Amino acid sequence: MVKETLKSFYTTTPLEEVLRELSKISIERRTEKISINEAFGRVLAEDFFSPINVPHFKRASRDGYAVKASDTFGAEEDEPKTFELLGEIRAGEKSGPKTVVGGCVKIATGAPLPEGADAVVMVEYTEEEENQVRVYRPVSPEENVIKIGRDIKENQKLLSKGTVLNIQDLGVLSATGVTEVKVYSKPLVMVASTGDEIISPGTEMEPGKIYDINSITITQAVKQSGGEPVFRGVIPDNKNELIKAIRYALENTDIAVFSGGTSKGPGDNVPTALREVSKADFLIHGVSIKPGKPTAIAVYNGKPVFMLPGYPTSALMVYYNIVEPQIRRWAGLPPTSRPQSKAITGQRIYSERGRFNFQPVRLEHEKEGLIAYPVPTGSEAITTLAYSQGYIEIKPEVQFIPEREEVTVYLFHSPI
Amino acid sequence: MVKETLKSFYTTTPLEEVLRELSKISIERRTEKISINEAFGRVLAEDFFSPINVPHFKRASRDGYAVKASDTFGAEEDEPKTFELLGEIRAGEKSGPKTVVGGCVKIATGAPLPEGADAVVMVEYTEEEENQVRVYRPVSPEENVIKIGRDIKENQKLLSKGTVLNIQDLGVLSATGVTEVKVYSKPLVMVASTGDEIISPGTEMEPGKIYDINSITITQAVKQSGGEPVFRGVIPDNKNELIKAIRYALENTDIAVFSGGTSKGPGDNVPTALREVSKADFLIHGVSIKPGKPTAIAVYNGKPVFMLPGYPTSALMVYYNIVEPQIRRWAGLPPTSRPQSKAITGQRIYSERGRFNFQPVRLEHEKEGLIAYPVPTGSEAITTLAYSQGYIEIKPEVQFIPEREEVTVYLFHSPI
Repeated sequence: MVKETLKSFYTTTPLEEVLRELSKISIERRTEKISINEAFGRVLAEDFFSPINVPHFKRASRDGYAVKASDTFGAEEDEPKTFELLGEIRAGEKSGPKTVVGGCVKIATGAPLPEGADAVVMVEYTEEEENQVRVYRPVSPEENVIKIGRDIKENQKLLSKGTVLNIQDLGVLSATGVTEVKVYSKPLVMVASTGDEIISPGTEMEPGKIYDINSITITQAVKQSGGEPVFRGVIPDNKNELIKAIRYALENTDIAVFSGGTSKGPGDNVPTALREVSKADFLIHGVSIKPGKPTAIAVYNGKPVFMLPGYPTSALMVYYNIVEPQIRRWAGLPPTSRPQSKAITGQRIYSERGRFNFQPVRLEHEKEGLIAYPVPTGSEAITTLAYSQGYIEIKPEVQFIPEREEVTVYLFHSPI
Repeated sequence: MVKETLKSFYTTTPLEEVLRELSKISIERRTEKISINEAFGRVLAEDFFSPINVPHFKRASRDGYAVKASDTFGAEEDEPKTFELLGEIRAGEKSGPKTVVGGCVKIATGAPLPEGADAVVMVEYTEEEENQVRVYRPVSPEENVIKIGRDIKENQKLLSKGTVLNIQDLGVLSATGVTEVKVYSKPLVMVASTGDEIISPGTEMEPGKIYDINSITITQAVKQSGGEPVFRGVIPDNKNELIKAIRYALENTDIAVFSGGTSKGPGDNVPTALREVSKADFLIHGVSIKPGKPTAIAVYNGKPVFMLPGYPTSALMVYYNIVEPQIRRWAGLPPTSRPQSKAITGQRIYSERGRFNFQPVRLEHEKEGLIAYPVPTGSEAITTLAYSQGYIEIKPEVQFIPEREEVTVYLFHSPI
C-alpha cells in the first residue's frame, strides 16, 4: 500500500491574475532633490523649465571683426571698406570697447558682441594693418552671431516629468546652470532570507548549515531594477519572527521580498504569518509558474510583501517576473529593463503544461549562431544558475519547444 | 584680394594610428578588496577557489526517513520492512539521533543526514504508526541524498581572474561564505573643463559666460565606462594653469580628460602646455575624425592625457571613440560596452572624405522600422546632442550614406 504523492495544500493562481492584482496597487511616490552628479538613471518628478536663456548674450560664432552690418554694405573684393580697429574681445571677457560707425572690434569665437555691433565679418574676408581693417565682403545683420536663447529659451520646457535622465539630459540641465534636480525617491525594498539552516556569509560555518545566496542575488537585482535594497539579514523560519519582519517592512519600506531558506520553498509558517500580521487587501499562496509555484504574495494597504521560494534559481525567476515589474512601476521606470536576445534551442525543451514556465538557459556561440540550452531549475545548486545568462518563457498551453526553434531569451542583469 | 581659409597649424593623425599608439600603453593596475555587495560589474583580480564544500554535509533532498540503505533491501509493497523511529532532524539542526540497524530517523528536506544513515526513503513510500515506520520500497545508498561538495568542491576554481562579476557570480561567492573579493581598482580619471568663458553650474551667471556642460557629460560617461571620475572643476585657458592641472593629473590619477571650453576647440595653450609639462612618450595635436579634429593627446610615462574639443557633441564623440576604450582597458573590462541597434537612414547622410566621421543620429520609430536622422555636430548647442540617441560611423573613403540604407547605430550610455 503506497500513499499518493502529497498534494500541495495551496491552490495556485495564474500568473496573469497575480500581475493584474498587483497592477491595481496605487503607489505613493516620494520625491527628493538630488545633485545632478547622482541623477543618471533617476526619474524626473516634475517638468523642467529653463531658468535662463542659453546663450544669455549675443556671441560671435566665428573669429573675426564685430561691426554694424550696414557699415559693410557695398564692400567688394576690388573695393574693400576700411574700419578703425577699436580694440579686442576674447571669449569669456565681460565687456570691451563699443563699436561705433566706421569702427570695428576684433572678436574671438564665443566672445560677447560689443554694444553697437550686430554682425561679425570672418577673419578670412579681412586684412588688418596698423589699426585699420579692410573688409572685402559685406555681412547681413545677425551673420556669424549666435542670438540670445538660440539653444535654449528662458522658461522653455526642456524635460518632462517622468523622464529617465540620461547623460545628454544631465548636459541640458548643466547648460542652464542648475546643480540639483527633483526626482522620485527610489522605492525602499526590504530583502531578507528565511530558513533555520541559512547562515550569513562571513559567519563561521556550522554543521547542518548553508550560506545564504538569495540575499546577495536579490539585493543586487533590486539595485539594478531601480530600487534601494534595505537588507534585513537572515530570519529564522518561525511564525513570530516572520510577523516581526513583515511589520518592520510595512512600517519602514515600500516593498518586502523574503525568500524561503528551505529547499522546499516557504513552509507553513509563511501563509500563517501573512494571514496574522494584518488584514491583507490581497493574499495568495501558490502561483501557476515553474519554477516558483510555492510563492506567496500579500498586499497590505497597498504595500506588497513577496515570499519567494528558497532555491536561488527559482527565487531569481520569480523576482524577475513578478517582483521587478512592481519595483520599476514604483520607481516610475518603464516596465522593461533587461536586454533580450534571439537564440536557437540546442535541444527539445520540455515544459510543464498548465504552468507558465521560465526556463533558464545557457547560451553558447556555435557555428549556427547563438544556441540556448536549458539549465535545470529544481535544485538549490547555485552553479546551475551561474552558468545561465537568461531564461525563455514557455506558455502554459505549450508542452515543449522543439530543437532548432528560434526563441527570445530574456537576459539577466549584466554589467556593461 | 581675399585670403584663403586659414589652414590649421596642426597636422592630423589617422584615428587608427592614434588607437594603435594608445594600445601600446602598458597599464599599472591596482587591486583592492571590496565587499561583494559593491562588486557588481567589478573585475576579479585573481582566480577564485572555493574555501569550502557546498554543501559541506550530507543533506536529505526529500522529506522522509533516513536509513542505512541495506536495511531496506527486499522491502516490497506487500512485504514492508519495519523500522524503529529514533527521532527527527529538521533543516538547520546541527545534530540528531544516530541511525542504528533496524532504526530510522525522520528527516526534512535539506536537513543533515544522521550518522550511520546513507539514504532517505521518501515519505510517500512509508507509513508511520506508534514509533514504527513501515517502508514499502527499498532505496540504494546515496538515494535522495545530496553529497558533500555536490554543488561546489573545496578548492575548485569557480571564477577566473578577469571575470566581470554579475549577479550569479556574486551568488556563487556568497554560497562559499566569502564577503569580500579582490578586484582591480577602477582607473582614476581626472575630468576638467578649460575655457575663460566657462563657469560652473550653481555659480551666478556673469556677462559673457556660459555654464559648463562637458564636466557633467564626461564625468557621467566615465562612470558608465567603468572609471572613477576625479572632478577638477573649470580651469582657465592659460598655459600655466593647464600645466599645473596636467601635473596634478599625472601625480594623482591614471588618465586625464580635459575639454576645451572655447568653441574653437583647444587653443594654442593646449599644445604648448602639453609640450612643456614634461617629455611625452607620444604627442599629437589633430586627429582625422569628424567631429573632433582639434583633439590633442599626450602620453607621459604611460599615462594618457586627452584634450577634447569644447563642443559638447564633439567632446562626447571623441570620448566614446578614443577615451572610453582606454578607460575600459585600464579597468580590465572588455572593449565594447554600449549597445548597438540597426536602423535605416531617413535621409542621405553626407560625410567628410579623408576623416573618420562619427555622425550623431536621432532615432524615430516609424512604419518602416527604426529610422536614423543625422543631427548637426558643429555647434555648441547641447540641445542637438540631447535629441540624439547614438551615432553612426562613416569610414574616411565614404562620401555619403544613401537614404534607406541599413546602418549600425552605436547607442550612448543609457539608463536601464
